[in-house]
Amino acid sequence: MNNFNFYAPTRYEFGRGVENRVGELTLALPASKVLIICGQGSVVRSGLLDRVSASLDQAGVRYEILSGVCPNPTDDMVYRGIELAKQTCCEGIIAVGGGSVIDTAKAIAAGAVYDGDFWDFFSGKTIERALPVGVVLTIPAAGSEGSGNAVITKRDGLHKISIRTEHVLRPKFALLNPELTFTLPPYQTAAGIVDMMAHIFERYFSPTEGTEVTDRLCEGLLKAIMNEAPKVLARPDDYDARANIMWAGTLAHNGTCGCGRAEDWVSHRMEHELSAVYGVTHGAGLAVVNPAWMTYMVDHRVERVAQMARRVFDITGDNDPAVAKEGISRLRNFYRSIGMPTTLAELGIENPDFDLLVKKLHENMGEVFGGYYPIDAKVSMAIYKLMV
Amino acid sequence: MNNFNFYAPTRYEFGRGVENRVGELTLALPASKVLIICGQGSVVRSGLLDRVSASLDQAGVRYEILSGVCPNPTDDMVYRGIELAKQTCCEGIIAVGGGSVIDTAKAIAAGAVYDGDFWDFFSGKTIERALPVGVVLTIPAAGSEGSGNAVITKRDGLHKISIRTEHVLRPKFALLNPELTFTLPPYQTAAGIVDMMAHIFERYFSPTEGTEVTDRLCEGLLKAIMNEAPKVLARPDDYDARANIMWAGTLAHNGTCGCGRAEDWVSHRMEHELSAVYGVTHGAGLAVVNPAWMTYMVDHRVERVAQMARRVFDITGDNDPAVAKEGISRLRNFYRSIGMPTTLAELGIENPDFDLLVKKLHENMGEVFGGYYPIDAKVSMAIYKLMV
Repeated sequence: MNNFNFYAPTRYEFGRGVENRVGELTLALPASKVLIICGQGSVVRSGLLDRVSASLDQAGVRYEILSGVCPNPTDDMVYRGIELAKQTCCEGIIAVGGGSVIDTAKAIAAGAVYDGDFWDFFSGKTIERALPVGVVLTIPAAGSEGSGNAVITKRDGLHKISIRTEHVLRPKFALLNPELTFTLPPYQTAAGIVDMMAHIFERYFSPTEGTEVTDRLCEGLLKAIMNEAPKVLARPDDYDARANIMWAGTLAHNGTCGCGRAEDWVSHRMEHELSAVYGVTHGAGLAVVNPAWMTYMVDHRVERVAQMARRVFDITGDNDPAVAKEGISRLRNFYRSIGMPTTLAELGIENPDFDLLVKKLHENMGEVFGGYYPIDAKVSMAIYKLMV
Repeated sequence: MNNFNFYAPTRYEFGRGVENRVGELTLALPASKVLIICGQGSVVRSGLLDRVSASLDQAGVRYEILSGVCPNPTDDMVYRGIELAKQTCCEGIIAVGGGSVIDTAKAIAAGAVYDGDFWDFFSGKTIERALPVGVVLTIPAAGSEGSGNAVITKRDGLHKISIRTEHVLRPKFALLNPELTFTLPPYQTAAGIVDMMAHIFERYFSPTEGTEVTDRLCEGLLKAIMNEAPKVLARPDDYDARANIMWAGTLAHNGTCGCGRAEDWVSHRMEHELSAVYGVTHGAGLAVVNPAWMTYMVDHRVERVAQMARRVFDITGDNDPAVAKEGISRLRNFYRSIGMPTTLAELGIENPDFDLLVKKLHENMGEVFGGYYPIDAKVSMAIYKLMV
């Protein structure tokens, strides 16, 4: 096990009606004026934005609203938010939405107290401070409500870049009401499920030895997610199933599963290029990338794939490659069963430009990268081709 | 799943040498003068106290030392610590030791900023504030380094009482170096392992439905602990095994396993009476109590015991009571395999005073208590008798 530090001071309030506590918790940040960030309309149509506003009004917190954040959020919205937050002297940012909204809010929070260009942080500059961020979560998937990370795409360069802080960008509070997810369409629900599973895989596929505790946490969460997924798809208002999926999404990415182990993150990087170039849904892209990456590993570093197959899918047998392959097959079957694609064609990419994907990938990540197995251009090309 | 809040702002630093950061982290609390609480000599003999002092010296933090905390810590030491902390104007408490030391430190931390008798807090008064507590952990067992709880025994009344706060008493930082546990004797190591497993069982045996995520976390941690336990007993300086046991002890009790579910805590209450009356080691007592409680449940509320047997011990079969019994048998075998008692006689209690135990239990807990199954005097008597 590696040395680690773990500091996750996000206050989670979980259950029915918790969004109505946003005013009280914002006041306690403390913040008397905030910028609300949200998406393209569903939080308005559902009445959620009204409830959030009412709670802030009741607490005497003033607010500006910046709506219109899209999936795979881009830097232009961040620049607009920073300008608005600075102009109106906001003391905090409240994200009402899913990962794209929260990531945008985090980038604004860092940029609003920085004199330079916020993109500096995505080019390697350390974030020393940020406005406090609060979250009302509507989409369980990205896990951004409990993480110190954010991913932003640069609109003019096809670059989708993530930043990672130990705790500066962790939300101060996250309000998680499973009822808010009842109306999520099946495709988005399923894509979120793949995303949280991928967050666990990125930590599970580690080169670190002696990580039994976090191995078991990862395996347990994967089992729980796959147990609950069919329930939420069969009955979208199954409260307990939605609650389990929602909390799993947070635990998958708030650091709990990664303590003491090097992580991989190759699948996410490879998917980011698919999203940046083809605009695909992140979770759907991961359903294609994850099994392809694992398939490559069968012949190159099989041990953790075999362990996953044995412990998560209960596959027996002594032959690691055979066990691993069967596990990957079960994983693909699971993804298909929840309506996710497992090939580039099913993802709508009929003629993938492999050269462009590989070029962009290594432009962003360097010649060789990856925690579990080193990925150079030859390897990434082979893995992309396994997605066909 | 129940509504819940989870706020665990303890900063964990885990790995070799982390105890040398105590000065820097204490200064950041902020505290320039602290009271160090420790036990009866091993932290002196091992040189740990010298290293902690040196780190505080280097950071310019002044300190007083109160040593001599015993297992099942009592109120007299807390009174001494409160007086010393007040007299010397300490701004924080640093616990160097295991659960007894940390619990004593927490009670002192609450009492040092309170004008009344600190025992008020153990009689129902809410703790509103406390001095910040930092921990250098030497015994993985109680999980107090990550919890908001403390257990103190009143010396004159055989009352062993726990207090529970959401976060006021959570340590601000906890330094966990697995190497500090290499010299723990086998009996103490094993008792700690039972204690952390019991912390998981108290959460696992819940009346709440729809708790798949936390069920799986509990089951995974139990599996991990039972996988690592033989390793630390066979080779006390197995770093990775010690590290896994140490981190499991924290996760077992910092709230991660209990989110969204009612908890039980009957076994702990029943063991507290054994400790208070007979002075037995807490973990060893739990090795006797836990299986007896589960055995009673086979005929009264079997479902979770059977689930534990299936998922943790991989026992197959459709008959819940038979599966549950086999699981309990495997659990007892595991406890025996690590040198723990599973009967009162093996615990050294040849002629248990069942009437006294039951009387004290319900004096402390009321006529009926228990999260998973209601325990009245008839039931507690039956469970105590199953320990013979």
